[in-house]
Amino acid sequence: MVLGIGERRLIEILCGDMRCVEYRDDCALVPLDGDYLVLTTDMVHRSTDFPRGMSWWQMGWMSAAVSFSDVAAMGARPIGVLMAMGLPGDMSLEAAREIARGIGDCAEHCDARVLGGDTDGHDELTLVSTAVGRVGKDQVLRRFGASVGDLIAVTGTLGDAAAGLRINDPDDPLTQRLFEPIPRVWEAQRLGESGVVSSMMDISDGLALSLHDLQDASGLGYHVYLDRLPIRQNVKEIARDQEDLIALVVATGGEFELLFTLHPDDERLAKEACEFTVIGEVVEDGVWLTVDGEKRKLGPRGYQH
Amino acid sequence: MVLGIGERRLIEILCGDMRCVEYRDDCALVPLDGDYLVLTTDMVHRSTDFPRGMSWWQMGWMSAAVSFSDVAAMGARPIGVLMAMGLPGDMSLEAAREIARGIGDCAEHCDARVLGGDTDGHDELTLVSTAVGRVGKDQVLRRFGASVGDLIAVTGTLGDAAAGLRINDPDDPLTQRLFEPIPRVWEAQRLGESGVVSSMMDISDGLALSLHDLQDASGLGYHVYLDRLPIRQNVKEIARDQEDLIALVVATGGEFELLFTLHPDDERLAKEACEFTVIGEVVEDGVWLTVDGEKRKLGPRGYQH
Repeated sequence: MVLGIGERRLIEILCGDMRCVEYRDDCALVPLDGDYLVLTTDMVHRSTDFPRGMSWWQMGWMSAAVSFSDVAAMGARPIGVLMAMGLPGDMSLEAAREIARGIGDCAEHCDARVLGGDTDGHDELTLVSTAVGRVGKDQVLRRFGASVGDLIAVTGTLGDAAAGLRINDPDDPLTQRLFEPIPRVWEAQRLGESGVVSSMMDISDGLALSLHDLQDASGLGYHVYLDRLPIRQNVKEIARDQEDLIALVVATGGEFELLFTLHPDDERLAKEACEFTVIGEVVEDGVWLTVDGEKRKLGPRGYQH
Repeated sequence: MVLGIGERRLIEILCGDMRCVEYRDDCALVPLDGDYLVLTTDMVHRSTDFPRGMSWWQMGWMSAAVSFSDVAAMGARPIGVLMAMGLPGDMSLEAAREIARGIGDCAEHCDARVLGGDTDGHDELTLVSTAVGRVGKDQVLRRFGASVGDLIAVTGTLGDAAAGLRINDPDDPLTQRLFEPIPRVWEAQRLGESGVVSSMMDISDGLALSLHDLQDASGLGYHVYLDRLPIRQNVKEIARDQEDLIALVVATGGEFELLFTLHPDDERLAKEACEFTVIGEVVEDGVWLTVDGEKRKLGPRGYQH
């Protein structure tokens, strides 16, 4: 909640006032000869975005990763990132340098460069990353483009970050998944090149909210099944009961996995691109989660940055 | 001063840690077919960047203008801007909308679009603009490229923003120059197209600091003359004495005029592009200001964001 209204509604209003280029994707697209330039900006700050126990390096890494993940989710090749850093006066230079190293390491991981930045004194540590990438017009992956009957798929596993937040132990592998999210740059490009993905986005805001984002963009429905979701055994063990497990895996963000759709005939071809799990199918309308054979409406619950 | 060291030294250290693409210009340049993509990010926030009396609309305008000015100063055509907005909880929605309108109006003025954005709750109003533009490789204007004997020139007048800060009356035209800085997008592109400009940057950090930036980038010297500087009569009247006038016109930023160099034979041709004033010439080394026939060393005094 910002200014007493939901962040998404606020962005909608302000975008209207700014006469913003309308987009319903992870990034803005700017036509560029035969390609699109893809651009996105993300603001994170200490009190709301960095869990207790995170290292400076991890804060830097995460601030770059959120933007690279958005660029990758459009099937684009990341070019670089610009970073504006608001630094508190009582921060040590070494802490700021650790943040910078985390940013640089994340860019390197994404085969991209830090292109520039700005610093400013600030009450609270505030990091704003703007990532830029490029993708062929015929290879771009949007939030729309799916057809009824397409399969819904995700990379990796779900609920790790949510469980990691609960554990909050920097040495725990689940907490590390939260503290050091890996943007799926390689997988996203491979999926884009496969030519069989019909729509895609990242699930950094959680699965439920992301399915609603796909619905908003495509006008179609999305039906997923709890027993098909890729969930690690230790996440299941952390959940107090089934409802708690659902909250962990569908209603909490922090993971940068890819959510995408494809025609059932193309599953084998897509598997050559990267590992993924089919979790449901595109339907006429609604967002649904089937639990023990019972089909439930799934609300847009999830992490709003 | 951030973390106890000068901002420029801090950026240098952090850029090293981030393995940042090195650049000594207003923007980063990314090769793109026959062109360069130019990108820059700027963080401004209420306590340090928005003078008392500024309207919400003007804060929005200025936050976009700082980045568009940097893009324009490289001779580039602005494409658009992304805006991350950190909004205090006690701000009204209408105030946020006024900021958004200011951003949109500045983008429109620059013949560009708002491409996207992000919002976040924040203790202090914080606006981070990232502008992107494009320029032909043979038309890009850098901070280096001048030769000894080239003329030094500026668009517009100097000292208006500094005088406007002292007056601090939203109805005063000088204060308006500070509150609503006009990025010289049109002039910069015309100068770029003229083909006769040897180097260029904007003077948003003040003339003295900008001349030192040119020196750092080119390895040459810059000599300007107080009696050639374009100064409005009312700015002269506000100055308490000559030293105070010098402080107003060379050591204070806030104006988004263009500072550039050109061969003396090309002055007539450049004048067809836009209005400007010749204020000195490129020399072997040093940064110099001649006052009443006396040549003084000019230090890198000026506004550090």
